[in-house]
This record gives sequence, C-alpha cells and structure tokens, in this order.
Amino acid sequence: MRILGIDPGYAIVGYGIVDYDRNRFSTVGYGAITTPADMPFQERLRDIYNDITEIIRRFGPDSMSIEKLYFNTNTTTAIDVAQARGVIMLAAVNSGVEVFEYTPLQVKQSITGYGRAEKRQVMEMIKSFLGLKSVPKPDDTADALALAICHGHSSGSIYGKLGGIYK
Amino acid sequence: MRILGIDPGYAIVGYGIVDYDRNRFSTVGYGAITTPADMPFQERLRDIYNDITEIIRRFGPDSMSIEKLYFNTNTTTAIDVAQARGVIMLAAVNSGVEVFEYTPLQVKQSITGYGRAEKRQVMEMIKSFLGLKSVPKPDDTADALALAICHGHSSGSIYGKLGGIYK
Repeated sequence: MRILGIDPGYAIVGYGIVDYDRNRFSTVGYGAITTPADMPFQERLRDIYNDITEIIRRFGPDSMSIEKLYFNTNTTTAIDVAQARGVIMLAAVNSGVEVFEYTPLQVKQSITGYGRAEKRQVMEMIKSFLGLKSVPKPDDTADALALAICHGHSSGSIYGKLGGIYK
Repeated sequence: MRILGIDPGYAIVGYGIVDYDRNRFSTVGYGAITTPADMPFQERLRDIYNDITEIIRRFGPDSMSIEKLYFNTNTTTAIDVAQARGVIMLAAVNSGVEVFEYTPLQVKQSITGYGRAEKRQVMEMIKSFLGLKSVPKPDDTADALALAICHGHSSGSIYGKLGGIYK
C-alpha cells in the first residue's frame, strides 16, 4: 500500500510517500512544495493544486493521509491554511485518491505510542521507521512522513482485523 | 463589466451574476449550489469546484467578488467554509477570472452607505439596485448579489479615477 502523507499549509506543504507492506515501511520520496509570499493567494492555491496533482501522477499513491486542522489562535493564518487544505483534498479526489485525516495527537500516539511525546522523539522514530540517516528537513516534510506512517499503522490494523493478512 | 458574486460555504454557496455598466446594474442570473451533509467532505469540495467552473463557463464573468472570512467562534465550521472557499478561488484562477474580496462591513457600506445597516435594509437595497420584484432566496444568494454590487461600485470608482469614464 502506497501512502502520501501531507502536512498542509500555504507557504510550505510538506509531503512524503511511503510504501507499507507486511508491517514494514519503505520510503519512496519526500519534499516540500513552497509558494512565494508575494504571489497573489489564488495563484499560490493554483500552484499547490498543480504540484499535488503532479506528485500523485508521478508516485501513484493509494491514499492520502492529511493532518486534521484545529485552531484556537491566529485565525487569519488558520483560514489560509484551511483554504490550501481544501485544494489539496480536491487534488486527491480529482485523482481518485482516498483521503484520511488524523489529528496531531493520533500521529504522535501512532508513532511513539505516547500522545505527549516530544517533537524530538517523534522525529527519531520517523528516522527509525523509514531507515533514514537523518531527519528530513523542513519539519513540514518530516511531519508529512509521520502522517503517512500513522495511516500505515491505522490501515494495517484494519486489514489485520478484516483478513488476517498482515498480523 | 460582468461580475460573479460569491457567498462562500460548503453546504450552500450563494452566487449571483450582474452586469455593471455606466453606473447601472442588470441581473444576469443567481442561485445557490448545495451539497448534501452525508457526502464525504472531499466530494462536496469536488462538486463545488465543478459547479463554480460550470457557472463561469456559462456566464463568462470578468471578475469574482467573494466575501473575506473572519472567524472568532465555531472554528470547526470556519475551517470547512475556508476549505470550500479555497476550491472556489481555485476555480476562478483556473478559469482566468480575477478574484476580489470584501468584508461584510465593506459590502454593507457599499450598498447602504452605512456599515451598521440592518440586514433587512441591505436586502431592500439589493432589490432596488437590481430591479427585482422580491429578494432572492436563500439569504446566501442575496448576499452573493450584494458582493457583486459591492465590487461594481468599487471598480466603477476605480475606472472613474483612472479614466474618468463613468463618473
């Protein structure tokens, strides 16, 4: 199963593609889409939509795992992140990719087994799961890989329950 | 100049198309896009994107006038409205339509000359500007027409300043 993890944003969108098979992860690719601050907002949305569509076309993921948004402060930024997240989900549905969403708490729990784990611990576990020599930069990219791993764990246990294939 | 006014949302998107020429408005069309509550959210986004694209194709507006979002309460709804607004703006930019945004205060001021006008007064003025027999329903549609009128006034004065054509 190939998973595209997404850390949504409008200035930086982190992405990471992993394969998950028989409880093992392998890293397919990762990076970050960036859009310039001086570009009209709707053009930033267009670039994000086109880049996500291109990443899906190139890597052919089965599903997208994207962070669920909660906001209490800085509402202006929140609105813009949500607008970008809308076009990212549209790119998925228009490419026939199923969308799953997880809260930051679910991601931490899935990766470290502990919802209050420190960021450093989460990063080390990502490195370990994916057999990487260093933690990918920027943080948005590492967070995207964490979302992909989280969905792998979540789906793995679903498949295990349904068919007894993986567990 | 043909303007597409949009009251953004995910359950209901109000739209209204007006022509503005020599300080006069004429109504071209209006309505509301609705999406069912039991549809997966990314499919609601897809339907909204496709419907806006189709409205633009059919009516050929020069510009889109869309409400600027501010939220203090009910953040979950706010995030979903913003996600829908993202795909609406994407539809505009992908169809080559310029996007302009106005706050509810700017819209009220533009239509009634008074930022604290009551909703009923705004609705009566919309009817009057557009020569309609009754206020269009739902409110989202009337609000979309108000946004189109607001942009007409705003652009009219810009043209006036630039070329002295209309004023």
